[in-house]
Amino acid sequence: MAERNPKEKLVKMGNDIIKEVDAKENPKIEIPIRSLSNIIYNDKSKSLSIGDKTSKRFFFNVAHAKKFMQTTMVAAFCKELIEGKIHTNLRDMFYNLKRTLKDSEENTFDEQSESDPIVVDIEVALDMLREQLHLGADVRGRVVGNVSIVDRGDVVNWGKLGSGGWAIPSIVEEITFKSVDAKFILVIEKNAAFERLHEDKFWQKHNCIIITTQGQAARGCRRLIQRLSAEFKLPVYVFCDSDPYGWYIYSVIKFGSMSLAHQSDRLGTPNARYIGLTVSDIEEFGLDKFTIRAKDVDIKRAKDMMKYEWFQAPEWQKELKLLVDKKKKAELEALSGRGLRFMTEEYLPKKIKNKDFLP
Amino acid sequence: MAERNPKEKLVKMGNDIIKEVDAKENPKIEIPIRSLSNIIYNDKSKSLSIGDKTSKRFFFNVAHAKKFMQTTMVAAFCKELIEGKIHTNLRDMFYNLKRTLKDSEENTFDEQSESDPIVVDIEVALDMLREQLHLGADVRGRVVGNVSIVDRGDVVNWGKLGSGGWAIPSIVEEITFKSVDAKFILVIEKNAAFERLHEDKFWQKHNCIIITTQGQAARGCRRLIQRLSAEFKLPVYVFCDSDPYGWYIYSVIKFGSMSLAHQSDRLGTPNARYIGLTVSDIEEFGLDKFTIRAKDVDIKRAKDMMKYEWFQAPEWQKELKLLVDKKKKAELEALSGRGLRFMTEEYLPKKIKNKDFLP
Repeated sequence: MAERNPKEKLVKMGNDIIKEVDAKENPKIEIPIRSLSNIIYNDKSKSLSIGDKTSKRFFFNVAHAKKFMQTTMVAAFCKELIEGKIHTNLRDMFYNLKRTLKDSEENTFDEQSESDPIVVDIEVALDMLREQLHLGADVRGRVVGNVSIVDRGDVVNWGKLGSGGWAIPSIVEEITFKSVDAKFILVIEKNAAFERLHEDKFWQKHNCIIITTQGQAARGCRRLIQRLSAEFKLPVYVFCDSDPYGWYIYSVIKFGSMSLAHQSDRLGTPNARYIGLTVSDIEEFGLDKFTIRAKDVDIKRAKDMMKYEWFQAPEWQKELKLLVDKKKKAELEALSGRGLRFMTEEYLPKKIKNKDFLP
Repeated sequence: MAERNPKEKLVKMGNDIIKEVDAKENPKIEIPIRSLSNIIYNDKSKSLSIGDKTSKRFFFNVAHAKKFMQTTMVAAFCKELIEGKIHTNLRDMFYNLKRTLKDSEENTFDEQSESDPIVVDIEVALDMLREQLHLGADVRGRVVGNVSIVDRGDVVNWGKLGSGGWAIPSIVEEITFKSVDAKFILVIEKNAAFERLHEDKFWQKHNCIIITTQGQAARGCRRLIQRLSAEFKLPVYVFCDSDPYGWYIYSVIKFGSMSLAHQSDRLGTPNARYIGLTVSDIEEFGLDKFTIRAKDVDIKRAKDMMKYEWFQAPEWQKELKLLVDKKKKAELEALSGRGLRFMTEEYLPKKIKNKDFLP
């Protein structure tokens, strides 16, 4: 697909339909299939992506007609957002498009669960990010570091925001980086550890950017990590709990997620590496007294992950097996058992110095 | 209790115990009772507070001894935090204090559920905020407005942070306000509405501060609202979904919560008023098509709230009854049904102009 800007892509989509109408053909929209059968893991690029199977949505087809209408409504709405320079989110879009069709009892959309997947259809069909369509998602995440950005005309220095840091917005497409002075990016699952590192001036001592995802990384946060890493060639180290959920958070940052496989090249950061915690760390750093017993659901999840193509590296197989065998989890807070500044002054510096990362 | 700084209060607590030891008395710690029987609603000050019933925790008492030890451990830990100028959170504290007592199988703490209430005991006993003990809580919340603060030596202008805004930290005790140029504070339950208002420059046009709590307000966020309101005599308008959960969020911001009744004077903002949404708004602003059917649990919750002393105002009784009768809820996003900028350009300006607030 030739590179076009988002508005041009939407206009072309509409024009293609009009051409078919003029030619008295059955108007259609072609959409790549997103089911697991069409999701491909590329070991070389370290990312999940979508294959080339597509389905066609026809106007003159009783089973397709409503979805066809919904697709064009959402596309027209996004074009209006872009033209009006207005950003919104999926829920507001649903309310805005929900109405009863003239002379009928039929609603355009009954539930938000009908309009949400249409947005993904358009993302995939036009090879765009939802954020480029001016639709934001959840917001979560904070960042601190020696970075100046320009956002809506404001120059924001992430290193001069006190204890709070910069709240990462849902859409980071339009920010520009004015200056970036950092040797790496440390991505932290939990805010508590982020606050500890921030108070201890870790990012100043180690000349890095620290980002907390506050749990599973929101899209804005993932995109920010990806942009910083790609545009400034910065290594990314991810720091999560030693449990399947923490490792899953890492895998989504690195490889992308299955449900957003079509966006991995924009949301995934293939060069990300895992700094910890691991089950091996428990012994190496004397954390045994501060572990939690893994539940059945953790064991099952770890066993599932052992089968994923993107967890086949021997280092990961070893950690997953250790969790299954020892049935021990450890949270980032476990490091506080060794002293509140153990993480800042011993654990992380040692890991970074020895390049002790998982792939 | 004479005003002392937090460290002095902790030291006095320790010295009182030492005096009892020296006098060969049974050492004790006196703690106000926090059960519902000792929680008082003051209609004049519009806040929940704690009564004067107390209980004593003795060292020489088999049922008290462990908790006595735990209380002194937590108090000593907090003194160290203050002296070391280090902040942490409840989970890290638990891991840091958890250990096995010498020559025994007994742990100081087995679960975090043992150490958390001890912190509240000390807060109540010494009439202090957890944050003054250097213990942070959850973080959530973002703020934008014509305000400059000083935080850890950085001057931060909340009006110059691009689309992200300032991430409200868990502890806002130590920030100082350099300049505050605003006529009121608008507190918004949901981030999506906050982003809409921010993009539409609502805070510039109406010269106000906008804060999103992102759901139930975290302590840092509540304290920030309280400080701004009290120190700068700013009216506070709270903007939530029209449902019992949204109204509960409002009530916690205004009156305080039952579980933190001892902190209402520091965390509650008695002059806060409710700007919307209400069930009455549904008709007045033509939102009927965008409502959601209330569930049984909502109806039950509304009936419970009708009995709360702090919801006895006739305006609230009317809205609660309307919800029970009409069984209709409305989210902030319902306003988008009337157009994406309806909230910014019509709903809020009309409400503010007519002073159409609930008490």
